[in-house]
Amino acid sequence: MENNTLATPTPTPTSVSAHATMPLRLTLLDRSNPVFACYLVWMSLLVLKMLCMSLLTARQRMRTKTFANPEDLRLSKDSEVRFGDDHVERVRRAHRNDLENVLPFMLMSLAYVAAGPHPMVARMVIRIGASARLLHTFVYAVVPVPQPARVLAFATTFTITCFEAVYVLVCCIKYI
Amino acid sequence: MENNTLATPTPTPTSVSAHATMPLRLTLLDRSNPVFACYLVWMSLLVLKMLCMSLLTARQRMRTKTFANPEDLRLSKDSEVRFGDDHVERVRRAHRNDLENVLPFMLMSLAYVAAGPHPMVARMVIRIGASARLLHTFVYAVVPVPQPARVLAFATTFTITCFEAVYVLVCCIKYI
Amino acid sequence: MENNTLATPTPTPTSVSAHATMPLRLTLLDRSNPVFACYLVWMSLLVLKMLCMSLLTARQRMRTKTFANPEDLRLSKDSEVRFGDDHVERVRRAHRNDLENVLPFMLMSLAYVAAGPHPMVARMVIRIGASARLLHTFVYAVVPVPQPARVLAFATTFTITCFEAVYVLVCCIKYI
Repeated sequence: MENNTLATPTPTPTSVSAHATMPLRLTLLDRSNPVFACYLVWMSLLVLKMLCMSLLTARQRMRTKTFANPEDLRLSKDSEVRFGDDHVERVRRAHRNDLENVLPFMLMSLAYVAAGPHPMVARMVIRIGASARLLHTFVYAVVPVPQPARVLAFATTFTITCFEAVYVLVCCIKYI
Repeated sequence: MENNTLATPTPTPTSVSAHATMPLRLTLLDRSNPVFACYLVWMSLLVLKMLCMSLLTARQRMRTKTFANPEDLRLSKDSEVRFGDDHVERVRRAHRNDLENVLPFMLMSLAYVAAGPHPMVARMVIRIGASARLLHTFVYAVVPVPQPARVLAFATTFTITCFEAVYVLVCCIKYI
Repeated sequence: MENNTLATPTPTPTSVSAHATMPLRLTLLDRSNPVFACYLVWMSLLVLKMLCMSLLTARQRMRTKTFANPEDLRLSKDSEVRFGDDHVERVRRAHRNDLENVLPFMLMSLAYVAAGPHPMVARMVIRIGASARLLHTFVYAVVPVPQPARVLAFATTFTITCFEAVYVLVCCIKYI
């Protein structure tokens, strides 16, 4: 069920004539489109990464005993809520940066794939944009690295998201 | 226009032969796919819930007269901006938790539906994941309940999002 | 490749008969659907706007020398991290408001388009909702304007997102 290796959705010979006349655009947001499948893979990796941020936050909260809600205190036998711990705040800033950049990147890439870009370019753009965000998290929240490591990782995905937005705008501006 | 009760997109007899040969995958992201329709329903409920968080925040701000912007002060005849009110911050933490978890869950579920999972499993997964988030908001922001209520609700959607991501990865990893 | 001016996906005369019998619903999430193309355009504009918020934040951080991470200090030759600058915090509040409202609006509009609304209504709804958010950012983060300017812009998109959610719920509630 999952191992259809070709992009042509033609299970029986009798359907060839019908599908040969179907424009490729019809299947852009379908798993048979390699670009969309590539998008699905990298989106899953980014979502897993974002979920890891929650675990990182929880680990830092446990380690530094910094809990933000009174009902969480029984987890640590501590006496009061605390805010502003450095390690917790660093992970939370990295997480918020993800919300501000990864979610728009994922939505924009979906629109970009739907606009029917060149397959080779599109897959490269998705791979680089997603990899840069994985790197960004590493140098921000896992091992703090001196600048400009983080700025470069940030700028890569930022630029790619802009490129995708401009591409879609150029494609579809007449429907505004 | 909205009451097409069957999933078969065959309006006229003459089109049967063409559509009988069309693979089902083509229509995964279409309302005629019951899994996608199920996704649309639960996504709408989650979006409505997230919008409610804004109203909850506004209510707490009004009640405790905690306004973050100088230009909002005329709403309360108060004299200065304030930050850090407990009730406002609790709702805002719950809202941020939504951003960190509900949005990835919604995007991931869309990718999961597009990957063509087993319909029965997929609908169950979407229903449980979305319901757990509705419960999470209730025990976090509406009626604060002792742990582990919130942790369990959080972990349910978290696990389901991971499951969806892994499923999509297994399906499409060769397109990486 | 990008300049197909008509919405009819019929590249060759021989395919007309096959496509004439294909229901329109199959192509709702396709660029040949003018509503979806309209959605793509406005979503690109909103994503570009959200990216601008990052640049606005960076500009305010540079201007006021308010850096949140020790490794950023070499950018300003400053001696310590700082938090809570008024100008930085205003832009960040506006950005967070975007996350809370623009992302749900974009996801909800996608679901709304997928539910097959009336094309004229749908395009109007998307245009107004997206324009209101562009206005919201302007009166919040660029030129602070007395209330109720911001509340009105906020309420417009808020109401439209609710409308879309209710529409999708009414369409698809039987698949819950």
